[in-house]
Amino acid sequence: MTKEGSPDFVPPAERIATFDNDGTLWAEQPMYFQFLFAMDRIKALAPQHPEWKTKEPFKSVLAGDMKGLLASGEKGLLEIMARTHAGMSTAEFDQIVREWFKTARHPRFKRPYNEMVYQPMLELLAYVRANGFKTFIVSGGGVEFMRAFAPDAYRIPPDQIVGSMGKLKYELRNGKPVLIKLPEVLFIDDKAGKPEGIQSFIGQRPIFAFGNSDGDQQMLEWTAAGRGARFMGLVHHTDAEREWAYDRESDVGKLDKAWDEAVAKGWTVVSMKDDWATIFPPTK
Amino acid sequence: MTKEGSPDFVPPAERIATFDNDGTLWAEQPMYFQFLFAMDRIKALAPQHPEWKTKEPFKSVLAGDMKGLLASGEKGLLEIMARTHAGMSTAEFDQIVREWFKTARHPRFKRPYNEMVYQPMLELLAYVRANGFKTFIVSGGGVEFMRAFAPDAYRIPPDQIVGSMGKLKYELRNGKPVLIKLPEVLFIDDKAGKPEGIQSFIGQRPIFAFGNSDGDQQMLEWTAAGRGARFMGLVHHTDAEREWAYDRESDVGKLDKAWDEAVAKGWTVVSMKDDWATIFPPTK
Repeated sequence: MTKEGSPDFVPPAERIATFDNDGTLWAEQPMYFQFLFAMDRIKALAPQHPEWKTKEPFKSVLAGDMKGLLASGEKGLLEIMARTHAGMSTAEFDQIVREWFKTARHPRFKRPYNEMVYQPMLELLAYVRANGFKTFIVSGGGVEFMRAFAPDAYRIPPDQIVGSMGKLKYELRNGKPVLIKLPEVLFIDDKAGKPEGIQSFIGQRPIFAFGNSDGDQQMLEWTAAGRGARFMGLVHHTDAEREWAYDRESDVGKLDKAWDEAVAKGWTVVSMKDDWATIFPPTK
Repeated sequence: MTKEGSPDFVPPAERIATFDNDGTLWAEQPMYFQFLFAMDRIKALAPQHPEWKTKEPFKSVLAGDMKGLLASGEKGLLEIMARTHAGMSTAEFDQIVREWFKTARHPRFKRPYNEMVYQPMLELLAYVRANGFKTFIVSGGGVEFMRAFAPDAYRIPPDQIVGSMGKLKYELRNGKPVLIKLPEVLFIDDKAGKPEGIQSFIGQRPIFAFGNSDGDQQMLEWTAAGRGARFMGLVHHTDAEREWAYDRESDVGKLDKAWDEAVAKGWTVVSMKDDWATIFPPTK
């Protein structure tokens, strides 16, 4: 693919590689880390909102009652997101997220969340870049949240991060322009939203794509459907000891239909337990 | 800015330059070229739609009656856009636009529209890139339309083109995935939409921005409001002989408030007539 004159040669400008984030580049258990951030944020804001003690979905979050929270349904989750991801400027939100990465620790591994990235994937990112690829994240996670850690963690610049996003509003505050995060969704970058987001924000079909769940199925299909040599890969979480083991029955990062399609079409499925010598990078 | 140790030094990863397209990188008279494309497209489709002969806004387009078309208002313009920019796959649309660039000629200059780019701006793009900048287009024009010519014309890759966009829909056609362009707006990248789009799709504030009209005012304000050395520039169309002369009273590319702000704040205003030795590149 990198060898000029080869039938599989691809010019550097077309070497686009897209990676899912949650469960592909970093861990996603016991729950998507952005959601753990949101719950921590609700707790931090609670003293200013005494009424939350008795009001759902906040009551469940403050009690650490995940079942109660899930019982509040999509409406409850959206309310948590709106309270924690909107109503401030993009600069303020960035600062809050960076502070969280400095102070919060993963409940099981006791490490900062931005160190819960996969060493083999860091090596893969470096490897494809060394072969002339432009690497992109294409994730259901929030783009502003990811930009607060991903450039450092993965050496992927902010403009090469595609994610879900809320609407922004440009306004002047005391004559100084700010961008305010509104509690309205602009784009959800998951499932069919992934190829849609790839086309809208990247504008070229990837020739290399890596995911780990059914949310990545359409991205891999879209990648596979192009001409010439292609690579489609899935991380399979098979290591309960060093990480977690989950697939078809998981609430988070469910891998079911995409796995069947990968087997049927000969896409690469990586078993974390069998194929990865290391999971996380050394502690900093 | 490029000299390490200088107080104005900016690391390469933060050297973001954004350029408006219509009237900044290429011409926009007698009308935005994308709109001329849409009118040509209506004419090409007319034989399959005999009813258009008597139905507005198509009737005015087919008669070349710009006043009649404008009388149909925003609703009429949106209908023209929906008919010409939606209802096909992104690959089909790309092919249609590329074909138009091959065959259509500008009414005054008799050149392909993709040759109606400004030679001094091509040199400026090359100059800032040679100084480590990543160059982006941030335009009110449609992103899929621009991607059909801008990578070749400006050496700006598809993922560094931010523009207005419609919604896409991923679907399988005979088992093959396609992205269908829907007649619904996702994002309008003009005026306050420019800093919003910069944050959403680029994720870093530019330190260098160039525009030509009131549609660029907020992008320049947003650029100016960052810390450290900044460059804000406007192209002023002052050359009726070699190009066009228009500003405060123009329907297309109106330059009024942004000009006043540029003068008040000391932003660079380029007079095409006085400052540019050449306007267009040599004919290919």
